[in-house]
Amino acid sequence: MKLLKEYIRHSGRVIGNDILKVDSFLNHQMDIGLFQEIGQEFKKRFSENKITKILTIEASGIGIACITAQYFDNVKVVFAKKNSARNLNSEVYESQVFSYTKDTHYNIKVDKNYLCPADKVLIIDDFLANGNAVLGLLDITKQAKSQVAGVGIVIEKSFQNGRDSILDKNVRLESLARVKSLAGGTISFVD
Amino acid sequence: MKLLKEYIRHSGRVIGNDILKVDSFLNHQMDIGLFQEIGQEFKKRFSENKITKILTIEASGIGIACITAQYFDNVKVVFAKKNSARNLNSEVYESQVFSYTKDTHYNIKVDKNYLCPADKVLIIDDFLANGNAVLGLLDITKQAKSQVAGVGIVIEKSFQNGRDSILDKNVRLESLARVKSLAGGTISFVD
Repeated sequence: MKLLKEYIRHSGRVIGNDILKVDSFLNHQMDIGLFQEIGQEFKKRFSENKITKILTIEASGIGIACITAQYFDNVKVVFAKKNSARNLNSEVYESQVFSYTKDTHYNIKVDKNYLCPADKVLIIDDFLANGNAVLGLLDITKQAKSQVAGVGIVIEKSFQNGRDSILDKNVRLESLARVKSLAGGTISFVD
Repeated sequence: MKLLKEYIRHSGRVIGNDILKVDSFLNHQMDIGLFQEIGQEFKKRFSENKITKILTIEASGIGIACITAQYFDNVKVVFAKKNSARNLNSEVYESQVFSYTKDTHYNIKVDKNYLCPADKVLIIDDFLANGNAVLGLLDITKQAKSQVAGVGIVIEKSFQNGRDSILDKNVRLESLARVKSLAGGTISFVD
């Protein structure tokens, strides 16, 4: 996706050899005009699928998922919760995720009322690195016996193993920008 | 807002005398058609203000803020972060918030790059109870020397003191549904 790559080249900042900061437009400050273009691109790529629900994870997936949902027909968004709020229903699907960014394990949870076998799910997230968050979401859809149409990622770090982890599960993956390398502070893309 | 009250009456569940669960449409599963109506209502109420930025807090404010931003002109959304991710800029505005729901204090942070004195800010959140999250966001806008156009809340629990806390700061508050009481499991509204 050309516009997205321009945003990344123009406003992304590289830290070390593997961290790409895009918090000026994607995951802290959010550029809604860009999100609309992202949403339309996901719709284009998954147009032949009868998506019934978009599943994401708090916090930075939520904005992209909500804007994207508008381009599908009557699709609700569900976000997996990371923290055990006191008022979350006790009947939940649950999976454990390891976060490299925060160097800790955490549980993600989805209320059983909001995913069912009749659902055809599009999983959306802002970043794909090692793929652990997406694998957790896939585990939850499996527990719910929902179908998965695929995974839509805004930025994939293709030099990490998230892509392989997802393809190994025979799940379709669409990443709108695939970063080949951040070595030496230079951003290069696959293709 | 009539449609919102219908959703609350139809799908809200009362727990005890003070918890209103609306996670089937507002803050776990999200009904994007409703969010669009909410966004247009916020635009109507703040149409005379030249909003430059919408500020919210992770996680459940994000979806509403992003959908709402579409009805304003070229407005970015910034969400305050609750957890100290390793890759958040160290130059942040920070405030401490007490959460009754989770019975703990936490810090909220906004990167200093994303709020400035030229900003006219609309603060958006899903719920107003004791107002602590909003007071934290107001503290952050004060540190940034930004102007505040007002606070837009989807559901206000009017029997708690959040409204007074905000009005005491001479800040405009617009709540789309004001819940007067949940006593005995019955939802009643102000007006």
